[in-house]
Amino acid sequence: MANVAKKVSWSGRDPRDDEDERAGETTPLLNGTGPGSAGGARQFTPSSFLRPGQLSNVDLNEDIRELETELPRPYPNEIPHNEKLLSLKYEVSLDTNSISSLKERRINHAAFRTVEIKRWVICAMIGILTGLVACFIDIVVENLAGLKYRVVKDNIDKFTEKGGLSFSLLLWATLNASVVMVGSVIVAFIEPVAAGSGIPQIKCYLNGVKIPHVVRLKTLVIKVCGVILSVVGGLAVGKEGPMIHSGAVIAAGISQGRSTSLKRDFKIFEYFRRDTEKRDFVSAGAAAGVSAAFGAPVGGVLFSLEEGASFWNQFLTWRIFFASMISTFTLNSVLSVYHGNAWDLSSPGLINFGRFDSEKMGYTIQEIPIFIFMGVVGGILGALFNALNYWLTMFRIRYIHRPCLQVIEAMLVAAVTAAVGFVMIYCSRDCQPIQGSSVAYPLQLFCADGEYNSMATAFFNTPEKSVVNLFHDPPGSYNPMTLGMFTLMYFFLACWTYGLTVSAGVFIPSLLIGAAWGRLFGISLSYLSKGSIWADPGKYALMGAAAQLGGIVRMTLSLTVIMMEATGNVTYGFPIMLVLMTAKIVGDYFVEGLYDMHIQLQSVPFLHWEAPVTSHSLTAREVMSTPVTCLRRIERVGTVVDILSDTSSNHNGFPVVESNPNTTQVAGLRGLILRSQLIVLLKHKVFVERANLNLVQRRLKLKDFRDAYPRFPPIQSIHVSQDERECMIDLSEFMNPSPYTVPQEASLPRVFKLFRALGLRHLVVVNNHNEVVGMVTRKDLARYRLGKEGLEELSLAQT
Amino acid sequence: MANVAKKVSWSGRDPRDDEDERAGETTPLLNGTGPGSAGGARQFTPSSFLRPGQLSNVDLNEDIRELETELPRPYPNEIPHNEKLLSLKYEVSLDTNSISSLKERRINHAAFRTVEIKRWVICAMIGILTGLVACFIDIVVENLAGLKYRVVKDNIDKFTEKGGLSFSLLLWATLNASVVMVGSVIVAFIEPVAAGSGIPQIKCYLNGVKIPHVVRLKTLVIKVCGVILSVVGGLAVGKEGPMIHSGAVIAAGISQGRSTSLKRDFKIFEYFRRDTEKRDFVSAGAAAGVSAAFGAPVGGVLFSLEEGASFWNQFLTWRIFFASMISTFTLNSVLSVYHGNAWDLSSPGLINFGRFDSEKMGYTIQEIPIFIFMGVVGGILGALFNALNYWLTMFRIRYIHRPCLQVIEAMLVAAVTAAVGFVMIYCSRDCQPIQGSSVAYPLQLFCADGEYNSMATAFFNTPEKSVVNLFHDPPGSYNPMTLGMFTLMYFFLACWTYGLTVSAGVFIPSLLIGAAWGRLFGISLSYLSKGSIWADPGKYALMGAAAQLGGIVRMTLSLTVIMMEATGNVTYGFPIMLVLMTAKIVGDYFVEGLYDMHIQLQSVPFLHWEAPVTSHSLTAREVMSTPVTCLRRIERVGTVVDILSDTSSNHNGFPVVESNPNTTQVAGLRGLILRSQLIVLLKHKVFVERANLNLVQRRLKLKDFRDAYPRFPPIQSIHVSQDERECMIDLSEFMNPSPYTVPQEASLPRVFKLFRALGLRHLVVVNNHNEVVGMVTRKDLARYRLGKEGLEELSLAQT
Repeated sequence: MANVAKKVSWSGRDPRDDEDERAGETTPLLNGTGPGSAGGARQFTPSSFLRPGQLSNVDLNEDIRELETELPRPYPNEIPHNEKLLSLKYEVSLDTNSISSLKERRINHAAFRTVEIKRWVICAMIGILTGLVACFIDIVVENLAGLKYRVVKDNIDKFTEKGGLSFSLLLWATLNASVVMVGSVIVAFIEPVAAGSGIPQIKCYLNGVKIPHVVRLKTLVIKVCGVILSVVGGLAVGKEGPMIHSGAVIAAGISQGRSTSLKRDFKIFEYFRRDTEKRDFVSAGAAAGVSAAFGAPVGGVLFSLEEGASFWNQFLTWRIFFASMISTFTLNSVLSVYHGNAWDLSSPGLINFGRFDSEKMGYTIQEIPIFIFMGVVGGILGALFNALNYWLTMFRIRYIHRPCLQVIEAMLVAAVTAAVGFVMIYCSRDCQPIQGSSVAYPLQLFCADGEYNSMATAFFNTPEKSVVNLFHDPPGSYNPMTLGMFTLMYFFLACWTYGLTVSAGVFIPSLLIGAAWGRLFGISLSYLSKGSIWADPGKYALMGAAAQLGGIVRMTLSLTVIMMEATGNVTYGFPIMLVLMTAKIVGDYFVEGLYDMHIQLQSVPFLHWEAPVTSHSLTAREVMSTPVTCLRRIERVGTVVDILSDTSSNHNGFPVVESNPNTTQVAGLRGLILRSQLIVLLKHKVFVERANLNLVQRRLKLKDFRDAYPRFPPIQSIHVSQDERECMIDLSEFMNPSPYTVPQEASLPRVFKLFRALGLRHLVVVNNHNEVVGMVTRKDLARYRLGKEGLEELSLAQT
Repeated sequence: MANVAKKVSWSGRDPRDDEDERAGETTPLLNGTGPGSAGGARQFTPSSFLRPGQLSNVDLNEDIRELETELPRPYPNEIPHNEKLLSLKYEVSLDTNSISSLKERRINHAAFRTVEIKRWVICAMIGILTGLVACFIDIVVENLAGLKYRVVKDNIDKFTEKGGLSFSLLLWATLNASVVMVGSVIVAFIEPVAAGSGIPQIKCYLNGVKIPHVVRLKTLVIKVCGVILSVVGGLAVGKEGPMIHSGAVIAAGISQGRSTSLKRDFKIFEYFRRDTEKRDFVSAGAAAGVSAAFGAPVGGVLFSLEEGASFWNQFLTWRIFFASMISTFTLNSVLSVYHGNAWDLSSPGLINFGRFDSEKMGYTIQEIPIFIFMGVVGGILGALFNALNYWLTMFRIRYIHRPCLQVIEAMLVAAVTAAVGFVMIYCSRDCQPIQGSSVAYPLQLFCADGEYNSMATAFFNTPEKSVVNLFHDPPGSYNPMTLGMFTLMYFFLACWTYGLTVSAGVFIPSLLIGAAWGRLFGISLSYLSKGSIWADPGKYALMGAAAQLGGIVRMTLSLTVIMMEATGNVTYGFPIMLVLMTAKIVGDYFVEGLYDMHIQLQSVPFLHWEAPVTSHSLTAREVMSTPVTCLRRIERVGTVVDILSDTSSNHNGFPVVESNPNTTQVAGLRGLILRSQLIVLLKHKVFVERANLNLVQRRLKLKDFRDAYPRFPPIQSIHVSQDERECMIDLSEFMNPSPYTVPQEASLPRVFKLFRALGLRHLVVVNNHNEVVGMVTRKDLARYRLGKEGLEELSLAQT
């Protein structure tokens, strides 16, 4: 898939020469080759932000209507799966451009304090609600899964005696498949964005890329129901990842004080109805989600920062931490009451790794090389997992893109999972005495009385419980054969499961795989070293779990802290860090992390931390999109409408230049105005007749902009009469008068740093005379990537 | 001290009109009123970065020599103690301007990887060395203090029987005073910057303000010796704060691969010899210091981020965490071996709060309002502490600024501390049975055999041990009277001690005061509630300690995590967060935090997190310094020398403008060059004769710049002959061709955000035609502050 046709077009003229043309009539610069082929390998670049190149020179005055027929369908059924493409379908980047400065000048000190207090209240509410949602999921899963396992266990117990265990298998598989079917149907048919763990989507959101529907109430409902059904359906999934997404949705909803899904506006928190504020709250929500999932409030804060922060702000971080703490505290209180030991506060998260006693399970310095070796193994296994999942995802994109096929696949996986589990349990001869063990549903099968089947503790249980068992069961609870078979099977099942059209997380399956081989490793070690006291298998299970998870998701600081907090013990911090570090280094050598891989498969214009190291030779001039559609400070309404209606150039920000009638004069940059702001202006008819230019335009309040947020009406819905088209609109009052600019000689890393540090959406490139020569958008930066052979440039795709 | 004379001067001319004048001859714009008066209330503003105003119009062509005699002494003995001043003595801000782009273009992928590996190696070394320094301090303090207490105890035991305890008092006081004298002498006479905890200095450094000598090897040696002597001398101080400073110095030293104090250059790590890299390593060092001090690696990372981060970078954070982990691990290993229980790894930090058993000491939801109340008390007591210390510091600045007076004061405090302790112990009748207690030096005094004096456990001990005793001694170990008297006395002693000319931290005394009143509070509560089981005094001691420390230093997230990690227990995270939050809110209502207060007393141009909330109405035009000394792209050497020699205008960055001979033409900004770069250019004679302008200038390697870093020679040391003065220097190759600029209409918060997010030192303000109209430096931003009555503007002082 390397031969992506890269077609670009370049107008050799100076943009300011084109100024009047553009002002009078849009200048669609299009270069289309028709809809992408079925394979998707030859997407094209129908952006009017075209770039210098050498392929073709499209006439500037070509009519837009001729080209429109050649545009690809706006939403093809197929996701582009070419890794050298960047999709243009995402509403890229959250807005950080302020609605001129009219709002900010008005806020005084007292009002500021009120706003600040409101922020804290919102964070507390985010924490409480996220905690409650986590409780809800936990309690429902526990009851439903308990019911299922009891039914199946009774059935197995019955048929073990009189033969005909295949009925039990059938029952188990059918139960699983039917539960998963419901879970998959609601996701596939109602809200596909609720599929998966949601972490890649939240990463994108925090990175500044808006994925449609990702923070809607409907998504939350589907996500919560979906994850319950997936876990109850016995899939190799966890309920932790989806909590992060849930927290984010809750935060987005509360902070806006209204729900567009429910069509309710509570008329509160209207101040926060803009992208930057909303993003801050979503960070807090994601942190609260992590905190509820793992009982890791600090880890949650670090997760949000790692994924989303562009600019560290002490107060924001402190608020995020507050939300996290409230979330885990709420979960802890409610679950403690539910479990009958009120105020014990022993369940800080959905999964608790249990108490690691540092005295019994301390480590010595000699073990550190062993842990590092486990990190290497985890990195390799993680890379293998990701590579397999990559091919599987490619296959799915190509062949399984119809919802009903997706549902069928999910059901198939559920049935196979049950069948594999059953066969493994059936074939296992690993019997353990029942007393003193913490097995919830001890399956006796063919074991002697008073014994249970050890394989069943791993398969016949929710994955969370299996993880904790592997960490804490005393040495000798599992025989090596059981663990080896379990690791192998569960590895492939988890890999197959991730990417199904169900709501599900990959954290717990990864931990489970790692805990299994880690324990196996510990047992082998203990065997080799003739039963040395230090080779406690539970400790190795923990390290294996860390290694495997690190090898798959490749998170760094936040994952270390999450693991530390989940074990409730700082002693293991150092070895966990070493293991995660090794796993990341080894894994990165082969393939990317799972989340990054899926983000890239969706062709999201994701900005990484730093510009590619070898990109210093590129300058803003080479990177920028050009020519730019500029508006004059006092502009004809018709021109504005035409520019906004131009479907080919879906620009979001327009530089405003000096509207000097003498066009030979330098036309310097005066400001920047957003599409959404223009639409609000047109909607409220904020313009005057050309003859009455001295009259005052209608004044708009900030509220008018806020009410329209975040779903600004499309330009087609705004009717502008022929007379109105001739009116003039004065933009100077509404534009941002000091947009961020960069000289055209600036290097790509410098532009990148500016974008990343300030969370920009557009950056105007100016020449030495402050004239607009181009515009850098997020896509222009995300296009450059460090490949195996140096810098690569991705193509842009409309899909 | 409100009547600070604010004198400004304004040239009404457009800067570009002055361009040629400035290029030919420096245009000193000075406005001095003579040296500040003794009271310091009337400093003046002899900056040539003068600002628009209405007071006077100084002639532009006035000769500099006339004014020079009126300049104040460059380093007066007195620190300006007017809180409405900003000092100009600090070399403000670290450089983030890259030495044009010649370096960066050359680095390829392999070289990048080598550099990355080197960074990790340096971080590991920082961690190891910081850990070892912490071990050294701990072991030496333990032995010396043990020796001292044994001598005094033997003496007291002897004289208790036969009377004449005043000899013991004398012995104790003399021992303390003499030890403290040595500690104070080395600080006062050798390296005054080693005084105090060093945290304010490191905060400034990470904020971007260079304080002279702060990261020198000599400072480290004095700091380490000083802190040992202070603690052994029995002052109310801790050894934790200085660890942060020590870590920072170690990091700065290692990362540069040379020591200017020792005049050794190891010729390694030369790539890192620039301000941005050094700053990153200093962050890691500070984190490693926190980590070693409290056994809190995550807290260390968060401390560095809270104090220093302007731009969150995943890899940087991960490296900082690595250094922190290595540091605590090293300390832990060495101390475990030293204490004879190798590999037990039970001493992760210099202070360990001991094991809080969550089962025995859990909290219930009813206690949360009580904790919040304790936070309020902590906030009030903290504010009182800070206010008292503020007046004391003002007194010290005014009257105790000679080193010998400072030494005498330190000795006095040491003697008084011993005397107070002795009298308190003497008067106390609180006897406790000796068995089952963990008292290191049980003083019997007048107690019955087998009993010890309870007051002595608090006073006759290192503060760290006293804190742990207060946390963990079983209920009934102290009677309320003892605790009350101790709190009162220790509060004033600690307050008096902070700010002495000794190396010492305030963390431990704060914790100790808080633990004492917290325990007292817990005992009262238990008494009121008729001995309810939940009122464990140790738990309240912990909360009191958190409240008091939070009320004094006002740190947020990092302090919570440090406390959580030091208790080794995540259960207390939620109440500790609530307590710290309350303490901060209450305390902030009265006065600032202790560190911020001291930073402000030094008139450091410190940038806070956000611009003052009511500053939206200010624009860059009002904030900027103007006129600006610009250089032409091809400039006469004599002009450059004159500009650099101009002692009145100690500018660090000069905009480079188009050197068009036709001065009526627009002279747009072309780049920015630093003072240090110009000096290197002059030193290497990188210029050509005017007649041979077409000849190629001598080429400079990046090494030439690096070797000069960080102590660039003063301009006076560079001899430029009269002939050479007529040569021309082409700056375009060495300047930064795309400096960050901002239009003059940009609001202050926007300028502020740009500065903070990108860590800038200079920001060029341009008009709509890209002509330089002014320059915003850190001082211009730090001048605006939110006072009680809205926005305040501070004056600038040369001292």
